[in-house]
Amino acid sequence: MILLDFDKGNGLVPAIVQDYKSGKVYMLAYINQASWKKTLETGEAHYWSRSRQEIWHKGDSSGHVQKIKEIYVDCDNDTVLFKIEQLGGAACHTGYETCFYRKVGPEGEVAIVGKKIFDPEKVYKK
Amino acid sequence: MILLDFDKGNGLVPAIVQDYKSGKVYMLAYINQASWKKTLETGEAHYWSRSRQEIWHKGDSSGHVQKIKEIYVDCDNDTVLFKIEQLGGAACHTGYETCFYRKVGPEGEVAIVGKKIFDPEKVYKK
Repeated sequence: MILLDFDKGNGLVPAIVQDYKSGKVYMLAYINQASWKKTLETGEAHYWSRSRQEIWHKGDSSGHVQKIKEIYVDCDNDTVLFKIEQLGGAACHTGYETCFYRKVGPEGEVAIVGKKIFDPEKVYKK
Repeated sequence: MILLDFDKGNGLVPAIVQDYKSGKVYMLAYINQASWKKTLETGEAHYWSRSRQEIWHKGDSSGHVQKIKEIYVDCDNDTVLFKIEQLGGAACHTGYETCFYRKVGPEGEVAIVGKKIFDPEKVYKK
């Protein structure tokens, strides 16, 4: 089993999340050893939530689970790439298809270019 | 100008690097405030080298500069996505087209699936 280098990132390794069909980059999240194991075991993306300080099964509250299609590891074992099928069609908690829905212009200004798929107020009920 | 959140990562923000045409994810690198500014000013990717602790103009020793085509920022301003044109055809210092040239199998084992473009011994001379 591949040994990821969790030391460089204080126990965390960044996971780049990409749609397995379109190649769109959806988000970046972090995994720890436990969420890495859970992801391999279940075939669904599990991360480490830095804000809540807990294992985060993506889609637990929204239903928008990420089905793992392929996993790649980089040359120095400190980043992984998840190619996934995004249930619900949107990865971002804002309702946009991708977290990278804003484009940066030459002066560093931003413009919204992404597509909104759902209304977060309806998806994330209390 | 967009204010990236450099605080969460101790002064660094991860940059996902993707080929602007094929959509292949090439690598993950880190930027600090100075390399972010340099990238916007020059249109060529500049990173922060964590191992050398210095600004790293990608391609300086190999000639394999990354021309910035588009930049996106994520929903909480703590990750950027560089869509680039990779001069020399390979982003990884190993000579592979992408740093993610190894695929992880169901048991966590890895297999080389990437394409080797150059011989690093010839490109990185002393």
